[in-house]
Amino acid sequence: MSGGLDELLRADLRGRSPYGAPQADVPVRLNTNENPHPPSAALVDDLARSVAAAAASMNRYPDRDAEALRDDLAAYLGRATGVALTRAQVWAANGSNEVLQQLLQAFGGPGRTALGFGPTYSMYPLLCVGTGTTWLDARVRDERFGLDLDRAEAAVREADPALVLLCSPNNPTGTAVPPDAVARLYDATRGLLVVDEAYAEFGRARSAVGLLEGRPRLVVSRTMSKAFAFAGGRLGYLAAAPEVVDALQLVRLPYHLSVVGQEAARAALRHADDTLASVDDVRRQRERIVATLRERGLDVVDSDSNFVLFGRFADSAKVWQAVLERGVLVRDVGLPGWLRVTAGTAEETTAFLDALEAALDLLGDSA
Amino acid sequence: MSGGLDELLRADLRGRSPYGAPQADVPVRLNTNENPHPPSAALVDDLARSVAAAAASMNRYPDRDAEALRDDLAAYLGRATGVALTRAQVWAANGSNEVLQQLLQAFGGPGRTALGFGPTYSMYPLLCVGTGTTWLDARVRDERFGLDLDRAEAAVREADPALVLLCSPNNPTGTAVPPDAVARLYDATRGLLVVDEAYAEFGRARSAVGLLEGRPRLVVSRTMSKAFAFAGGRLGYLAAAPEVVDALQLVRLPYHLSVVGQEAARAALRHADDTLASVDDVRRQRERIVATLRERGLDVVDSDSNFVLFGRFADSAKVWQAVLERGVLVRDVGLPGWLRVTAGTAEETTAFLDALEAALDLLGDSA
Repeated sequence: MSGGLDELLRADLRGRSPYGAPQADVPVRLNTNENPHPPSAALVDDLARSVAAAAASMNRYPDRDAEALRDDLAAYLGRATGVALTRAQVWAANGSNEVLQQLLQAFGGPGRTALGFGPTYSMYPLLCVGTGTTWLDARVRDERFGLDLDRAEAAVREADPALVLLCSPNNPTGTAVPPDAVARLYDATRGLLVVDEAYAEFGRARSAVGLLEGRPRLVVSRTMSKAFAFAGGRLGYLAAAPEVVDALQLVRLPYHLSVVGQEAARAALRHADDTLASVDDVRRQRERIVATLRERGLDVVDSDSNFVLFGRFADSAKVWQAVLERGVLVRDVGLPGWLRVTAGTAEETTAFLDALEAALDLLGDSA
Repeated sequence: MSGGLDELLRADLRGRSPYGAPQADVPVRLNTNENPHPPSAALVDDLARSVAAAAASMNRYPDRDAEALRDDLAAYLGRATGVALTRAQVWAANGSNEVLQQLLQAFGGPGRTALGFGPTYSMYPLLCVGTGTTWLDARVRDERFGLDLDRAEAAVREADPALVLLCSPNNPTGTAVPPDAVARLYDATRGLLVVDEAYAEFGRARSAVGLLEGRPRLVVSRTMSKAFAFAGGRLGYLAAAPEVVDALQLVRLPYHLSVVGQEAARAALRHADDTLASVDDVRRQRERIVATLRERGLDVVDSDSNFVLFGRFADSAKVWQAVLERGVLVRDVGLPGWLRVTAGTAEETTAFLDALEAALDLLGDSA
């Protein structure tokens, strides 16, 4: 950055690069954990009609509290988890990143800390920088990236953070934490425990939503980006005690959710059963990746999400490049020796497995 | 807030109420400076078709850098101000509030200050709380709410803030600052000077966009909420040096602008000439309000925006209530003795003028 601007930038941002997966214009992109199945024609049609109807009054601000959308989200999440939820317990924002940012603004911020269990979602430390919150990375995972609960509890008790950010199933490892472990972590902290269930629909573990009753400091965050095949719609949400939702209204930007965004999300929720049927196919492709790579002799982490972490390579960057050259983009998540691949359609998954096979054949022992 | 949650909330948020204009279900709402003219049928049709086309790939993340939208915004703002602009100089977010929040995250934050000239846009101090930035309110306006430039310069030099937030035309007073005064304030500060031109299209003053060349610390923020009649679309943007835009990419949430939001805004921009034709009518209603209230003997502030600040009342809350009881919602902006009314359609404006007349007749000397 030229001139005086670099000095004006916050010191903790200088020299950084913008967050974002490297993109490449290749036929098969399995790098950002998108759902490979496009929305149904019925959904697209419903969405277009809903947005058109709402657009007629686009000169007016949207419903500031997104009440109808929160009703719909409460109904969906209640059905999905078997827990009765109301609008007062549900909050929504532009992606779960904004949900998490608002949580940090209200309960974190300057002089406070948020603790997570790395390797985990790489946005957590960036959200902390953006909100002036101190990020603590407790490295208490075992060799297979499962949470070592005793050490996790000890880390939480010792740091006494304002927030604990627990990604489950965890990105980028795919490993999930069962409800009884979540309950123990809740008891270990005096702060907010945020369980980020962005990938929950792909998993086998029960949702932490079942733990909300009687736990006012527990927050379960969710997204429509993954299982809902709605990454382009940018809709994240959470379930928590109504008091947490009230607190977020103190820091949310007024009218943060647009009319089109609210209406598009409501249309997507109306077609939830249809959309979520694709989750089974994604799970099948995930298991196919796990089984095939293990047969190949690779180290593969059990996954409750729509992606698979695999390794270990002497030079994972070289493998990443060799796979890319065969037209398939996977993700180097910064874990030496490992790569992450999103489960795509059957065809995309085949393309990936073939590309990896060819790459490893070529690289041989050096990989 | 019950239980332990109140203690967990940041101390500077405790006891606060969410920001937002009080709403009431009355026939005429002139409280949030919306454009009263709904989008044309052609725009709604274009928008619906664009969103439907984009929705077919909603399972994919949106263009993270919103390049096509920023091209369109640069072209519009260039046409409107006579200054050639490129995408690299333009940034967009979910409303100008998010633009301002990102500026504070990148250039303000803990240990830094932002200075404004109250009374001004009431979100500024709240955005500072949300980003850990210290807010300084320099009260250097004259009796008519015009900026006393000598005192403003002195305040800036003394405080040496990281950012100066200059709302022009200013909300809630309607008063604008001409470019030569903006240039003087730029020279007075070592920090970023952010000129918030949310209401610029309604004004007579030239835009500060004409000052950008050679001033890397100048930022001009804009919105599609007002003149563009696109409040429901939530699209704010800015023009600045490319280095400022680069800096914001370090703090923006990845994929912050949804596919539907980007496509809806692009549709609105395609119909800009059509939409902006309504601005003339809004200006006429504003001048009608100014003239009528002055004839009535009220104190009315000259306005370059789509609203009018008027007073002075012994008890402005009582006048607000009496007008509301006659079916018209105006805004009590927290300035004792003053109220703010948005210029509506001719019919809405008539309803307001009649309601105020009746209210003042009833209240008599006590108002």
